[in-house]
Amino acid sequence: MHRYRTHTCGALRPSDVGATARLSGWCHRVRDHGGVLFIDLRDHYGVTQCVVDADSAAFKAAEGVRSEWVVRIDGRVRQRPAGTENADLPTGAVEVYITDLEVLGPAVELPMPVFGDHDYPEETRLKYRFLDLRREKLHANIMKRGAIIDSLRRRMREGGFFEFQTPILTASSPEGARDFLVPSRLHPGKFYALPQAPQQFKQLTMIAGFDRYFQIAPCFRDEDARADRSPGEFYQLDIEMSFVTQEDVFQAVEPVLRGVFEEFAEGKRVTKQFPRIPYAEAMLKYGVDKPDLRNPLVIADVTEDFARDEVEFKAFKGVIKSGGVVRAIPATGAGGQPRSFFDKLNDWARGEGAPGLGYIVFEDEGGVLAGKGPIAKFIPAEIQALIAARTGTKAGDAVFFSAGTEAKAAALAGKARIRIGDELGLCDKDQFAFCWITDFPMFEWNEDEKRVDFSHNPFSMPNFEHDAFLALDAADADTILNIKAFQYDIVCNGIELSSGAIRNHRPDVMEKAFGIAGYGKDVLEAKFGGMLNALRMGAPPHGGIAPGVDRIVMLLCHEPNIREVVLFPMNQRAEDLMMSAPSEVTGKQLRELHIRLNLPQKPA
Amino acid sequence: MHRYRTHTCGALRPSDVGATARLSGWCHRVRDHGGVLFIDLRDHYGVTQCVVDADSAAFKAAEGVRSEWVVRIDGRVRQRPAGTENADLPTGAVEVYITDLEVLGPAVELPMPVFGDHDYPEETRLKYRFLDLRREKLHANIMKRGAIIDSLRRRMREGGFFEFQTPILTASSPEGARDFLVPSRLHPGKFYALPQAPQQFKQLTMIAGFDRYFQIAPCFRDEDARADRSPGEFYQLDIEMSFVTQEDVFQAVEPVLRGVFEEFAEGKRVTKQFPRIPYAEAMLKYGVDKPDLRNPLVIADVTEDFARDEVEFKAFKGVIKSGGVVRAIPATGAGGQPRSFFDKLNDWARGEGAPGLGYIVFEDEGGVLAGKGPIAKFIPAEIQALIAARTGTKAGDAVFFSAGTEAKAAALAGKARIRIGDELGLCDKDQFAFCWITDFPMFEWNEDEKRVDFSHNPFSMPNFEHDAFLALDAADADTILNIKAFQYDIVCNGIELSSGAIRNHRPDVMEKAFGIAGYGKDVLEAKFGGMLNALRMGAPPHGGIAPGVDRIVMLLCHEPNIREVVLFPMNQRAEDLMMSAPSEVTGKQLRELHIRLNLPQKPA
Repeated sequence: MHRYRTHTCGALRPSDVGATARLSGWCHRVRDHGGVLFIDLRDHYGVTQCVVDADSAAFKAAEGVRSEWVVRIDGRVRQRPAGTENADLPTGAVEVYITDLEVLGPAVELPMPVFGDHDYPEETRLKYRFLDLRREKLHANIMKRGAIIDSLRRRMREGGFFEFQTPILTASSPEGARDFLVPSRLHPGKFYALPQAPQQFKQLTMIAGFDRYFQIAPCFRDEDARADRSPGEFYQLDIEMSFVTQEDVFQAVEPVLRGVFEEFAEGKRVTKQFPRIPYAEAMLKYGVDKPDLRNPLVIADVTEDFARDEVEFKAFKGVIKSGGVVRAIPATGAGGQPRSFFDKLNDWARGEGAPGLGYIVFEDEGGVLAGKGPIAKFIPAEIQALIAARTGTKAGDAVFFSAGTEAKAAALAGKARIRIGDELGLCDKDQFAFCWITDFPMFEWNEDEKRVDFSHNPFSMPNFEHDAFLALDAADADTILNIKAFQYDIVCNGIELSSGAIRNHRPDVMEKAFGIAGYGKDVLEAKFGGMLNALRMGAPPHGGIAPGVDRIVMLLCHEPNIREVVLFPMNQRAEDLMMSAPSEVTGKQLRELHIRLNLPQKPA
Repeated sequence: MHRYRTHTCGALRPSDVGATARLSGWCHRVRDHGGVLFIDLRDHYGVTQCVVDADSAAFKAAEGVRSEWVVRIDGRVRQRPAGTENADLPTGAVEVYITDLEVLGPAVELPMPVFGDHDYPEETRLKYRFLDLRREKLHANIMKRGAIIDSLRRRMREGGFFEFQTPILTASSPEGARDFLVPSRLHPGKFYALPQAPQQFKQLTMIAGFDRYFQIAPCFRDEDARADRSPGEFYQLDIEMSFVTQEDVFQAVEPVLRGVFEEFAEGKRVTKQFPRIPYAEAMLKYGVDKPDLRNPLVIADVTEDFARDEVEFKAFKGVIKSGGVVRAIPATGAGGQPRSFFDKLNDWARGEGAPGLGYIVFEDEGGVLAGKGPIAKFIPAEIQALIAARTGTKAGDAVFFSAGTEAKAAALAGKARIRIGDELGLCDKDQFAFCWITDFPMFEWNEDEKRVDFSHNPFSMPNFEHDAFLALDAADADTILNIKAFQYDIVCNGIELSSGAIRNHRPDVMEKAFGIAGYGKDVLEAKFGGMLNALRMGAPPHGGIAPGVDRIVMLLCHEPNIREVVLFPMNQRAEDLMMSAPSEVTGKQLRELHIRLNLPQKPA
């Protein structure tokens, strides 16, 4: 017989009745029913009810055990008495009558129990993470995380990708977020940096000719914590491909994400074909570049309707005259809402810094749509009908308006859309709604500095014929500001999982792009010389993306806090309370690394 | 037609003849055969011969391309002319007649060529790693590395293991090698450390109840470089299991290693059943605890033979009298070697600090074994026969002797065994010969400090009944020095792939073990309090191992240098020459991290 177990705690079934079994595990719950002791024995695989009474030689030993002690028990498998079966438990039809019990690992009194689901302070949970992880929900989350990552890997390999390991001790990157630094012992005064992402390495892997790269890549950013982001380290499904267009990236990545979400969605719907929404369209229809498509509301531009002479609503006309826009947010079924619904939305809008949200409520008056509400009287019926048609509203619906500069009106409309969708319960939460956002502008006008600047990622390839791009000059400002980049975001339920791009692999085009944004060749060479050098030695067209693994797991575990899906997370202050990291080090260690402390002055 | 390719450069076959194809790749070799240009186009998947002449509109463009330019070509697939097929190339029966050619990525003159296999200085190769990686051998090594890791993962999952990610920013560990440190921005004066191995985390994962852990784990040690070890980071197949004996670990790990070696051995034999060799036996038979079992020679102890009165060889008798031993190393077939063979071995032994290696050469004299050589005359025939029997030597063989203290005699015999096996060509190199080394002593006598000390790993479980262990006292020194630990090594071809152990999960036993080695509870609590705390809250018996991934890949790629099996390695001085790491950072970065430099004084 095995030293510790013949079966796991999740294995026994009615077919085992009569057999002798040896189990090892944690005493999940110990109940004393007057001379009969019940021990629910738990391991990774399940829970088995074990029972002992004074007739057993093991009774005395069993009386000594407490919750979370680790024990081995030997016993006979028997049917549970009729009426005491537990249908919720795979082992719930049987129990083990204990004939021998050995304590393998006793436990002192615990700072938090494992059984039950009382909430405990975050600090206790993190300090005793090994106890918290014994709890069912967290244990299941971590196992699900592992299964999701396995599935991502399998799907990537099936898609013809190969996994590579890129360095973790590397160079400080000249842009982006704050680096974690590692002082070098062998090179006094020099430092390694932990990679914010393996961006340069994956591009170099393509330049080296490997064609299809992926990595479940640890990434490091010394940024302050947020609920959805670990302080310190996080993982991304890092992807890069050679000889591809943007469409090829979509075709490679979309089935992987759809597949893994379908596999783990537990019945929720997953978008079959991810819509591609140009950035400008997203900003118009959803007021944001990461729309939550579970919300069915679509914003419409009604600037030209309000600009018409027949409309007398002065506030909007003034906005339009000074170059602004008016956006309309439908509120399906809001006609039945009390006045307070509308007032609350207006109050919220003022809290956002807007003068308020005008609105019209549509009613049916003898088969004709009739707009009601404070501003309806300024808008003739035929214009109301136009607005209703543009927004898809009908009798019983309302429509809200957001007016201002294009950026402000869009942003407010976007937030109002979310709020209205939530308050009216319009969002079908039983789904994972994906989309691609495409056609980000390459450049934008920097009004403060009166110059053209990069809009998003300076290293994306402009969607513009190369020779024509190289020929652009300052007089082409309008053309330049209209150039789109081969750059894209993947969004799920309003959460951006990743940006991606077809990279600019042509040093001449990159120099030109930087020149347009006012950076000389010297700046480019100084900061990105290594990469430029590689691009000059035979670089293939390439592109990729890097969906956040932690975010994917959070979505699939329905956890808004990343600490619920990471095995050993740090707290918000970037401390590992269990291992006491960070911690002080010795003077010898500092000397070896050629550094000394430079502590803040203590207040006197 | 796809923007870049309809086929990869490894795809075209005679069945494609007549088709139109579009290929993209690197110009591997460009040959001008007087009006006919041949371009061998290379990508990740293979090489295709492309050809163009003045009849093609693409001729002019093709004339401009150089080695390692990235181009797209369109063309017609045609049979190669009879006699010009290349049977070594999967595409070697066809070629593509180029009708269009587009330069996608030109190349400046390269610091090292890709075509051909000229050797280049390490510095050039590392600085232009992206070029070196285009070469066939290195490209194949890196792909094999990936396939090996995929296979390890698959086999671990099939064995019921789950993969977890443990933190990379963690606490400085109080023992072991030198840590890489990461200054904390949020906690002035404190530092994270990169993990030397996830040892504590994997044990905590077991204490948390996860049962079967593995990870392809990045590990970090700030140690000086060796050929078989990266300066900085390396990977291990980290494994831990709960409720297991040492035998369970062997049963779990052995099929994974055997399987992956059989999969990638390219016909070499792999040990079917890994022998388990107790440490003491290994030190006797092989003179080392990581024996290369490809070498068939087995050392024997002949101390008692030389101790007999009939033997008159004074040198060995003196050694034995002062407590030393004599070991015999057989040299199969060495009888036919010239005198210089024996002299060279003796010279070598003196270079190792020994007085020399005595030897006997066995000859057949009328059906009787007769020993010859300088010391044979001091050893009567019947003792010679005993020695021959113990070492398995026969006429035509020789036997060498190593005498001294047990440790020195064993070590010299071990080295002589390797040397003799190599010089006589006795090792069958066409195999991967595995073994487990078991039963390492828990404690050893520290002669300098006249006290008992830990022999190897203080955290392994002693192979001794717990209560009896707890009852040991100073008077039991002999018993204590005979206690073995549940600790083991896995060795392949003389290379230690990993140590492993059943962990000491009982705080009382751990305190006792540290007490025996002279450490108080306070020391243990101060250094390992976090772990002890966790062990006190219900810990299962557990154990594991962590075979080195880089070493496995090196063995399977037949590469003695780790830099040939790592995608982007550092050089021996822990520098990434391609990315210029480590590098200087800004004063602002240092201030944010609350450190300043403490540079060595420059010589005046």
